[in-house]
Amino acid sequence: MEFSSAAFFPNTPFTTVTALSMVHTEIRLRELGITLPPAPKAAANYVPVQSSGDLLFLSGHLPMLEDGSLMTGSIGSEHNLDHGYAAARQCGLNLIATLQKELGGDLDRVEQIVKLFGIVQSSNDFHEQHKVLNGCSDLMKEVFGEERGLHARSAIGTNSLPLDISVEVEAIVRIKPLN
Amino acid sequence: MEFSSAAFFPNTPFTTVTALSMVHTEIRLRELGITLPPAPKAAANYVPVQSSGDLLFLSGHLPMLEDGSLMTGSIGSEHNLDHGYAAARQCGLNLIATLQKELGGDLDRVEQIVKLFGIVQSSNDFHEQHKVLNGCSDLMKEVFGEERGLHARSAIGTNSLPLDISVEVEAIVRIKPLN
Amino acid sequence: MEFSSAAFFPNTPFTTVTALSMVHTEIRLRELGITLPPAPKAAANYVPVQSSGDLLFLSGHLPMLEDGSLMTGSIGSEHNLDHGYAAARQCGLNLIATLQKELGGDLDRVEQIVKLFGIVQSSNDFHEQHKVLNGCSDLMKEVFGEERGLHARSAIGTNSLPLDISVEVEAIVRIKPLN
Repeated sequence: MEFSSAAFFPNTPFTTVTALSMVHTEIRLRELGITLPPAPKAAANYVPVQSSGDLLFLSGHLPMLEDGSLMTGSIGSEHNLDHGYAAARQCGLNLIATLQKELGGDLDRVEQIVKLFGIVQSSNDFHEQHKVLNGCSDLMKEVFGEERGLHARSAIGTNSLPLDISVEVEAIVRIKPLN
Repeated sequence: MEFSSAAFFPNTPFTTVTALSMVHTEIRLRELGITLPPAPKAAANYVPVQSSGDLLFLSGHLPMLEDGSLMTGSIGSEHNLDHGYAAARQCGLNLIATLQKELGGDLDRVEQIVKLFGIVQSSNDFHEQHKVLNGCSDLMKEVFGEERGLHARSAIGTNSLPLDISVEVEAIVRIKPLN
Repeated sequence: MEFSSAAFFPNTPFTTVTALSMVHTEIRLRELGITLPPAPKAAANYVPVQSSGDLLFLSGHLPMLEDGSLMTGSIGSEHNLDHGYAAARQCGLNLIATLQKELGGDLDRVEQIVKLFGIVQSSNDFHEQHKVLNGCSDLMKEVFGEERGLHARSAIGTNSLPLDISVEVEAIVRIKPLN
């Protein structure tokens, strides 16, 4: 859908509309019925996100649910594609939670999801890692729209991931500078 | 070989030579007897390449042949190193096809192949992923020359890749701005 | 520990202190009792590090010991976590050796370890790749301190790596421009 702050707030002076327009992405999250999980914390000598210029490099994020539990197991043997798709989407929700925290709550500062790299715990004969990763790619397009949300992407399989998680996704994101 | 547009076009005025010099890399492709495959398209909510500043982030590319078929199977068990090397080179041809399309047909705007990341579908006892990836690295040096073509690189193995492909390669490329 | 060049060189004029301050990171290496291995060389058509703007993209580095031998084998079956941690640290030492060579011997020009990506050769049932990678992350914090050393990170497993190495780590590092 199209969103126009002028239509939503017709009597609001221009400068106020500009300020209000800073919450578009959060409104979009509500429209989609999405509640973000708590932003993940690094448990060792690294950080969930490190910035460099206008790029944010996000660590490999886990399919952690709101209660802190993890979606685990290998796709193809223990679980099917649907489980993998859901796990990739959950990685994406955690990536967005990290972005929101890093950007002081304002996801409108996300200018471009530049790149996703996703790794799927897979049995040797499972070859649909790209369809698993669609769980994260579809989410990014839903939340950030086509222009900001479409990204370069690599999807691969592996025999083993940390904590037995089903999927891990890292990201490179470009942000708008603070005015 | 050295290439001099002045030698090839001795009677051409300077400004025209400058314009003609924009096709050096394409001439190099012909010298090498290389026909690029059609630029690959993304089949889901992502794109083959996303730009950020002067960097292009290219998605994981497949060893797709000109007829659209894929080079598949695990290296070490189903196939040998030669098959892997050829598949990595084919990934590279697809990367270059994406670059050419993104740059409006002018590969001379490639300033530097910055980074390749290659993943080889491997049996547990195959440990020559670096020699497989040489298929892509050698191609980049052939096409773009030593200065522009030499890149940082990581080569790893995995038990499974999308669509059973033998090799997947992603890239970061720096481009010259349009004047 | 805190390091103050003014405390170490109390009678040194300001400009000299500035020059001497260029060796802080090397002093820190000595304090930690660390001798760097020889900077690794690329054995094919790629380079150990490629720069782009203020970013250095470092190739996947190996756990090569000072004598040129490699730490090999799969974690979980052939070796335990301690071997993996030591191998990841050794990858980190090789990364720092490459940085030192690239920066003409002056590691103080490292502004930020931006990102590490580490791949652990793992048995199917080994799920502590994050603890393995701590070997490299801990080293970066020790050598470069909390501000410069803390990085984004992804840790994954795989069934096979080049030359049977136990761990491979690549890095993105931001450097200060030469004055």
